[in-house]
Amino acid sequence: MDCYEIMKRITTHRGVKQLVVINKDGLLLKTFPAESDELDESQIQSLHELAGAARRMVRDVDPTDDLMFLRVCSKTDEILVSPDMAFTVVVFQENHDKHAATA
Amino acid sequence: MDCYEIMKRITTHRGVKQLVVINKDGLLLKTFPAESDELDESQIQSLHELAGAARRMVRDVDPTDDLMFLRVCSKTDEILVSPDMAFTVVVFQENHDKHAATA
Repeated sequence: MDCYEIMKRITTHRGVKQLVVINKDGLLLKTFPAESDELDESQIQSLHELAGAARRMVRDVDPTDDLMFLRVCSKTDEILVSPDMAFTVVVFQENHDKHAATA
Repeated sequence: MDCYEIMKRITTHRGVKQLVVINKDGLLLKTFPAESDELDESQIQSLHELAGAARRMVRDVDPTDDLMFLRVCSKTDEILVSPDMAFTVVVFQENHDKHAATA
């Protein structure tokens, strides 16, 4: 099963709205499902900056450590960011714990 | 039970190393346990920037949405960031899922 198949499969999970792949320069490479609304350049840039800020923070606290995964909960969504050397994979899904939004 | 009692209690949870409270200007207000190593100014600044980057990203994707919670997994730690209007509470704990580090 190639990586495109895996990504397509992730987007079939309950609550998953979109999966995007960004390269290390912050350029959008792929959007799944292909027919979903593409994020615009400024949104991609914010995602890229967020991953950078998270990596800097982890290394500032411990220079031998590194960022593995980032989970952002907003009122309505959960945004999962998996950064790697060459690519960052981002999944947007519904916030399963919407009670958190009212806490 | 006042908020200090709650924070002290959080630091007694298994795996929790430290809890810090930062104000909206990025200044360190409190560290629990009080005898733990204080984060330095640059580390606090990185945390503050990370929370800002996460909030910008959420609002860029949907201007009606807002950041509720942020979870950063590094190889060794998990960093939980709970931002609010006036204060940001950050908990450093051991990464329970260290397998993720080798995935």
